[in-house]
Amino acid sequence: MGNIKQLPISSCKFVGLNIKIIYTFNVMKAELLTIGNEILIGQITNTNSVWLAQELNLIGVEVIQITSIGDDRKAILQAFSDAQQRADIVLITGGLGPTKDDITKQVFCEFFETNLILNNEVLLDVTDFFAKRNKTVSDINKKQAEVPNGCFVIRNKNGTAPGMWMEKGGTVFVSMPGVPYEMKAMVSHDIIPEIKKRYKLPFIYHKTVLTQGIGESVLAEIVSDWEDNLASQNISLAYLPSPGVVRLRLSAQGDDETALKNKVENEVKNVLPLIQKYIYGYEEYGKEQPKLENIVGELLLEKKLKLALAESCTGGYISHLITSVAGSSAYYNGCIVPYHNEFKHQLLQVNQSIFEKYGAVSQACVEAMAAELLSVFKADVSIAVSGIAGPSGGTPDKPVGTVWIAVAYHQNIVSKQFIFGDNRQRNIHMSAITALNMLRKLILNIEQ
Amino acid sequence: MGNIKQLPISSCKFVGLNIKIIYTFNVMKAELLTIGNEILIGQITNTNSVWLAQELNLIGVEVIQITSIGDDRKAILQAFSDAQQRADIVLITGGLGPTKDDITKQVFCEFFETNLILNNEVLLDVTDFFAKRNKTVSDINKKQAEVPNGCFVIRNKNGTAPGMWMEKGGTVFVSMPGVPYEMKAMVSHDIIPEIKKRYKLPFIYHKTVLTQGIGESVLAEIVSDWEDNLASQNISLAYLPSPGVVRLRLSAQGDDETALKNKVENEVKNVLPLIQKYIYGYEEYGKEQPKLENIVGELLLEKKLKLALAESCTGGYISHLITSVAGSSAYYNGCIVPYHNEFKHQLLQVNQSIFEKYGAVSQACVEAMAAELLSVFKADVSIAVSGIAGPSGGTPDKPVGTVWIAVAYHQNIVSKQFIFGDNRQRNIHMSAITALNMLRKLILNIEQ
Repeated sequence: MGNIKQLPISSCKFVGLNIKIIYTFNVMKAELLTIGNEILIGQITNTNSVWLAQELNLIGVEVIQITSIGDDRKAILQAFSDAQQRADIVLITGGLGPTKDDITKQVFCEFFETNLILNNEVLLDVTDFFAKRNKTVSDINKKQAEVPNGCFVIRNKNGTAPGMWMEKGGTVFVSMPGVPYEMKAMVSHDIIPEIKKRYKLPFIYHKTVLTQGIGESVLAEIVSDWEDNLASQNISLAYLPSPGVVRLRLSAQGDDETALKNKVENEVKNVLPLIQKYIYGYEEYGKEQPKLENIVGELLLEKKLKLALAESCTGGYISHLITSVAGSSAYYNGCIVPYHNEFKHQLLQVNQSIFEKYGAVSQACVEAMAAELLSVFKADVSIAVSGIAGPSGGTPDKPVGTVWIAVAYHQNIVSKQFIFGDNRQRNIHMSAITALNMLRKLILNIEQ
Repeated sequence: MGNIKQLPISSCKFVGLNIKIIYTFNVMKAELLTIGNEILIGQITNTNSVWLAQELNLIGVEVIQITSIGDDRKAILQAFSDAQQRADIVLITGGLGPTKDDITKQVFCEFFETNLILNNEVLLDVTDFFAKRNKTVSDINKKQAEVPNGCFVIRNKNGTAPGMWMEKGGTVFVSMPGVPYEMKAMVSHDIIPEIKKRYKLPFIYHKTVLTQGIGESVLAEIVSDWEDNLASQNISLAYLPSPGVVRLRLSAQGDDETALKNKVENEVKNVLPLIQKYIYGYEEYGKEQPKLENIVGELLLEKKLKLALAESCTGGYISHLITSVAGSSAYYNGCIVPYHNEFKHQLLQVNQSIFEKYGAVSQACVEAMAAELLSVFKADVSIAVSGIAGPSGGTPDKPVGTVWIAVAYHQNIVSKQFIFGDNRQRNIHMSAITALNMLRKLILNIEQ
């Protein structure tokens, strides 16, 4: 367990009691415990724990164990007592439904040697919850307002099961519903602020540099000297690769918020000249990771440009990414998926001689399509893709994974050939990511 | 722990030793243990455990706990000894890389009080692995061929870290690499067959009915009497809902494989008349869940029909689903995404008067597009979609989530209006699933 000191300050805004203690930790250790059979039979993925781990790491709390067990009294009691041995805080999700198979609340009482009492504020919340949905509260639902005697109640604005905060032997246990949006609202609005208020945690600053078109190992070589220098400043660097994209996350922790932020931002500036052509954006502390389709969308909106697409091997995936962004109709005109040569000719005027001389997977073909798109869709910019997604269709000259991409911005056309690999889904994904970034670079006049 | 009996039969085909023991269990209990900091910091989702839990449940092994810990010697030893107390088999993933932070193999030795020895067969595998990639083996990679003395080696065809099977106090521990496709290959090809060979497990038969276009609660009402009757036959029923689709899984376990199978298949036949129009397929025991795009693809191939699409609100997503299937070029001709009315008019001949009288989100508009598609793309069947994906663009008459879908099969056109909801991504997904199923029904002449 972390190094704990008691300080005689603070208060608690939770229903129930006021707390007058603040703890300071060198490192505060957390365990995440999910209760319910759905995870054990592989019916659902434990995404609650991923989200909780991220949120806790962001405020400087270290997650040391994630445990999933079933709705089983003995297993729950054992997990509680094991967790108490190693963690300063245990965040529990699940097992709080009104049906008989959910037993977390009863076992919570048993572990804390207490009993359930009706909490009138929660009863009002539950009654209100059903009234808003034009339903009356059944007796079984009223039971949701019973909480362990002595617990601090965390109210649930999105459901009927309240959160419960209790302590034993210096370890905090918080029991929450397993429904993701109920749990997340409690954590964001009540539990994280309460942890930050009650415990003195180190301040952590993260900044993530988003790169495209360069592999993890090549990237590591280029920034090697810069990376060595980070250690001396106590900045840690993580490479977070996903198909087509490598994210570089810089993290530092300490007490002086402004100094930390300046130190990290300064190192982001230092790495810029080394890898500028690969960087398509930044992920800010605590905010969502910007996607290329959003970044390109914002750019098109800002520059008042209209986009059109021709997708052969990507089969509409780029169009799907673009239109998954709300408001994309302001800059997106449309797409043609010409899945055979005759439609490339008929709808996008690709000359038959191009197919005969170069084939459909060629510079000539994608450039012709990119140019024609501008007039068909009255667009300012366009993307055209043609390739062999696989698993069949490859030749010695053009193996599976060969993809030609052209991007056009009025008269300017840039095209490039790529050989991605032999996985169909990955080839489609890589082509889309690469094409979007090529368009971004063309608009911003960045080296391709 | 389960009720264990030793029977003097069986053998082991693993590298190393032969095993001469079979255990029988009432219920065999498994624990899944993942080792590595990536999961604890929320960097990756624990999908290995979801897959393992599914595979173990399929062969009648009960998963009682899933635990994730970091690359920490003390935590690993504690987790091993805790797991030994409650489980008959412990499947461990992660921490087998050649770098210094990966310590699972060393701690494995410590727990089993043994030491690492070079295994020549693994060394050949590792050398071979690098030779195939035109690389020589470094000393650090040669260390991958060292395994705990006395362990049964499970060879890795897709990577360099071998699997290791050891036993202590009646509990089996299997350590595997964390890379999903390396781990999955070992489990499917070696570990599951070995468990089935060494332990007498109950036979389990699952059959899943795939439905589309009906909610979980309405479905449950319709099949209520049938469901009540399942219990008396010891068949359990699970509702597995996902957007647009509800899967109904029937499961039974026992000793007589043929009798079990007949019992379950018979009940699948019994439910058919009640919900036939919603059923689009079946998921067979141990096989992958068939997707609508695959089912529609096979149907088009079989009937020698060519497909074309016009996607407004779905923005290319249906085209993406269709083309994600390898070989789809045999039945797919292409798609137009006309993201503004003028392109619906220009590319698909939708009459201006239709926009004026009914708007683009209308029966007249989608029917006109579906019909025109057949001639533009020389197709036999088509899908046209127009709707308000949201979050903005709704009106009192046509709220966000309003979608018109038309499907055409030569002269036959069927169109329907749907109001899905207020989430953009969900509306796009629901529209696509619904449209694919409407086309399937039209081709097969099933009531819409």
